[in-house]
Amino acid sequence: MQSNQKIALIGLGKMGSAIAEKLLEAGLALVVFNRTQNKTEPLQKMGAQVADSIQSAVSDADIVFTSVIDDEALLSVSKEILAHAKKGAIHVSTSTILPNTAKELEAMHEDAGCIYIASPVLGIPKAVRAKKATTFCSGNQTAIKKIIPLLETYSAMVENMGGSISHANVFKVCMNYSLITAIELISELYVFAEKSGVDKAYIQGALKYMYSHPAVHVYIDKIYQRDFDQVNFDMKGGNKDVHLFQKAFLDAGVSPDLASVFESKVTEALANQMENKDWSAVSDVIRRRSGLE
Amino acid sequence: MQSNQKIALIGLGKMGSAIAEKLLEAGLALVVFNRTQNKTEPLQKMGAQVADSIQSAVSDADIVFTSVIDDEALLSVSKEILAHAKKGAIHVSTSTILPNTAKELEAMHEDAGCIYIASPVLGIPKAVRAKKATTFCSGNQTAIKKIIPLLETYSAMVENMGGSISHANVFKVCMNYSLITAIELISELYVFAEKSGVDKAYIQGALKYMYSHPAVHVYIDKIYQRDFDQVNFDMKGGNKDVHLFQKAFLDAGVSPDLASVFESKVTEALANQMENKDWSAVSDVIRRRSGLE
Repeated sequence: MQSNQKIALIGLGKMGSAIAEKLLEAGLALVVFNRTQNKTEPLQKMGAQVADSIQSAVSDADIVFTSVIDDEALLSVSKEILAHAKKGAIHVSTSTILPNTAKELEAMHEDAGCIYIASPVLGIPKAVRAKKATTFCSGNQTAIKKIIPLLETYSAMVENMGGSISHANVFKVCMNYSLITAIELISELYVFAEKSGVDKAYIQGALKYMYSHPAVHVYIDKIYQRDFDQVNFDMKGGNKDVHLFQKAFLDAGVSPDLASVFESKVTEALANQMENKDWSAVSDVIRRRSGLE
Repeated sequence: MQSNQKIALIGLGKMGSAIAEKLLEAGLALVVFNRTQNKTEPLQKMGAQVADSIQSAVSDADIVFTSVIDDEALLSVSKEILAHAKKGAIHVSTSTILPNTAKELEAMHEDAGCIYIASPVLGIPKAVRAKKATTFCSGNQTAIKKIIPLLETYSAMVENMGGSISHANVFKVCMNYSLITAIELISELYVFAEKSGVDKAYIQGALKYMYSHPAVHVYIDKIYQRDFDQVNFDMKGGNKDVHLFQKAFLDAGVSPDLASVFESKVTEALANQMENKDWSAVSDVIRRRSGLE
């Protein structure tokens, strides 16, 4: 890997911290910044330089990674980055955002003489740490070729989806949309089986035979055991995601019917003190609606 | 196999005919009956005896298979069977019906000194002919042991779900419910990708990686190619099935939210001269709603 590249990473939530660890493990020089400082300590011990502002983090960087919660946060952080970044700097955005926001960000970066790359991650922080994530990227192809070795420090597979900036985000929406559909299906079938007196282990076995993807198998077991305090992805995150899917579909002129089914349960979960449970606890909403417990 | 068993089969639709062929291929003596006579000819050539009434088909039979369209048809045919069957005759019902109807049928059969076995088939007629179907059965365990060799003439796997008569039907509902959810998901994602300018081959690849079941792969390709005149299962059948799932869930006190999403498209398909298309042509309804073609 090019050791003379200067890399910054902004946003040290669970996902941002995991990506930072992998870049450091690969022996890369990394400057990190987070609004709340305490998240930087473990990374500092691993050799990261800690910046006290976005300006000082990015002013010298060739490549800037960001990992933030939503479209609004990314637009705001991007404005600060572009005010201080070097000409030609590459911004690698790992967040799950709307396809249309990616288009807006690409234009903003071009105006400032920088390059925006969409690079959302499929996988939870644990998968990133195990180098088992999948990364989809789209945008400027010369820049993508430069950053692929960096993405490969945490991804088992990097899928280059070409020059249209929004395509990686469209694909990420499709993957997460599939996951909420699976969670809803698994939950409904277990409850239907339980109410019908059928051992739900039959359903568990059949679902595993139907799905091959390990992420779906995690939920087939998690919902079976009703293990919602071990959080893969929390209900607040689920709420953000489901509204993002709906907006993305509506922007494309497609009715997000399966997402709306899931949304109704997330809303009820949030209204009933379940905001810190795993998002698959929608299953308990379906149970309660069906008269169980 | 016991060559002295007398077997009858009533209902020579696509599925009933396929099962009859497999029983004949196994060298079993078979009497068949169908309301419209012309369906009996190919089976007669294979050695089946053709009866001219339910009475003459069943009066001598130890085992009676039925394959009919819906709950109402099965209740009506069962009354005729029970009026003429021998004491102790076993009725093997291969139809997809409501769990509660199975309970009602079991009681009717007990009152008449006969045995009702729920034995729905997962698989299309082609799978039955290739001996690749899966059969779930539930009910009287002594009778099930007797009939398993017969079910194995057309099933790759026979799953005995125990003594509670409704359990095989609950499980069949769960499997078909999974299939409509997959069809809806595949259809929505292709349309979303197409409207977003993303090559839907990406989605096709990801869906195949997510699902392992070959039946789902059939639909991933079928909907990709929009090949709805090659009919796996027609829209009229889909309409019957989706209402059955809804009724089964409602009977159990569970809201069939994913089924309702699918139902809306089946209704629109039937209102638009698509009754003879494959049920996965709901995909074209989603396309039209989204402004494609």
